[in-house]
Amino acid sequence: MNVFKKGWYTEISDDWPGVAQSYEIEKEIAHEKSKFQDIQIFKSKRCGMTMSIDGAIQSTEMDEFAYHEMMAHIVLYSHPNPKRVLIIGGGDMGVAREVLKHKCIELVDNCDIDDKVTELSKKHFPHLTDIPLKDPRYHIMFQDGAKFMESKVNYYDIIITDSTDPTGPAVSIFNKSYYEKVFKALRPGGIICSQGESYWLDLDIVLNLRNIMKEVGFPVVEYSTIQIPTYPFGSIGCIIGSNAGSCKKPRRAMTKEEADSMKYYSKEMHEASFVMPQFFKKRFESEE
Amino acid sequence: MNVFKKGWYTEISDDWPGVAQSYEIEKEIAHEKSKFQDIQIFKSKRCGMTMSIDGAIQSTEMDEFAYHEMMAHIVLYSHPNPKRVLIIGGGDMGVAREVLKHKCIELVDNCDIDDKVTELSKKHFPHLTDIPLKDPRYHIMFQDGAKFMESKVNYYDIIITDSTDPTGPAVSIFNKSYYEKVFKALRPGGIICSQGESYWLDLDIVLNLRNIMKEVGFPVVEYSTIQIPTYPFGSIGCIIGSNAGSCKKPRRAMTKEEADSMKYYSKEMHEASFVMPQFFKKRFESEE
Repeated sequence: MNVFKKGWYTEISDDWPGVAQSYEIEKEIAHEKSKFQDIQIFKSKRCGMTMSIDGAIQSTEMDEFAYHEMMAHIVLYSHPNPKRVLIIGGGDMGVAREVLKHKCIELVDNCDIDDKVTELSKKHFPHLTDIPLKDPRYHIMFQDGAKFMESKVNYYDIIITDSTDPTGPAVSIFNKSYYEKVFKALRPGGIICSQGESYWLDLDIVLNLRNIMKEVGFPVVEYSTIQIPTYPFGSIGCIIGSNAGSCKKPRRAMTKEEADSMKYYSKEMHEASFVMPQFFKKRFESEE
Repeated sequence: MNVFKKGWYTEISDDWPGVAQSYEIEKEIAHEKSKFQDIQIFKSKRCGMTMSIDGAIQSTEMDEFAYHEMMAHIVLYSHPNPKRVLIIGGGDMGVAREVLKHKCIELVDNCDIDDKVTELSKKHFPHLTDIPLKDPRYHIMFQDGAKFMESKVNYYDIIITDSTDPTGPAVSIFNKSYYEKVFKALRPGGIICSQGESYWLDLDIVLNLRNIMKEVGFPVVEYSTIQIPTYPFGSIGCIIGSNAGSCKKPRRAMTKEEADSMKYYSKEMHEASFVMPQFFKKRFESEE
């Protein structure tokens, strides 16, 4: 914790120099160093239960649904008939909770490198973990996701990379070698959705991910924006590589039950999230 | 300035308790108390030239275009033939710069209560003021906007309220009496667009503005979201009252020159900006 002021959590990082967000702490809950990461949990006065990893907020009770719904549903509704999903990272089970809303899904494998994230989530974030833990379709493993993927060729319909920023243990899933494995692990018509950073904050990372996905062979690479107040600069995105054509419009209808369960996602939001501000559109659609 | 850390500007306010954004200062430029407000100007390492009023950031070089383009163009492209525009607030001339891109506009009146904002903007934010100052269609007056409006009945096609938050001198333009005057000052088919706060941060203010606009007689009240990193929680909105039907789709095409001048706005962004996350849509469309 880089304390600016006692009693506040301040998110300040070399990844976003010159800018910081602070949250007043109601109660400190846990602070543990795992083999891989520094994990802090506190109750924020404004945003409820909050988990931070290596000094960057990962999820708060107030707005986690925006990120988790969009990371799961944009690609799941873009696939005509998804059966098998792999989640890399996402040990807090927030993405899994959303994936499991889809009755057509038969299997969700989840690989997080750090069992400590899951252990703490089970204890302090039951709103994320309760549903996955009870669902027999869900399997969580604690190992290197990229290595696990090598054993599954031509197997998954959807892969979701729910990672921290590209420093620390997530470095290895922001490179070409990772996406080559993703490409092989997907079945024909498969789609990868990765945490795609913010174009306001990290335009170079976004463009680099776009280039990598194109290089490994995805014919379609797209970006969908998510508004999420507690990430730096208030937004992040999904970067999507697809073997199945554009994901800009859903290909399956939602059931009423699914629609009623959403706090952020809708068919309209799906389509709107792909509209980029002009300055970003020009860069994303260029060949640079 | 509520300093959390020396050399940083920290935006901390009773209007958004428990959360704060901080920007590392490259250079302090000016700090003046006008008759109405406390105005600070500094160069931020991350966001360039920045103006703050009463402790809240109003505009930075990095992202001012997002706010100014959307506040002007959403309503201007929603009106079939706008001729006369009134801007209340907006003494930095950022909204005026965008309004004046429309060749069909014959007259832009701008009322800001505080000439100090304009004086400092002319000196330090020429990217906002240069174009309006040279355009004979543009007239700026320093007086109470609500009072000025009383002299103009059935006169404007578009009124834009570009205000600070509803504390300080802007309190008077967040109430019913203000919108009654707006309603009278508009011609048939007229549209009002006000800085509409963020539904993540100030849902009650957003719903209150919606109620006021409905009460004074606007048959259509809508909300368009703007992503803007340097406002608290990363977004704000336009709240729009229309005598001319829905503003969700533009009614006039852009010229190529207009389209090329945009860094944020496009026809697609216009339409996408009206899509609300489910939790907000349910509240905004309810009768509460």
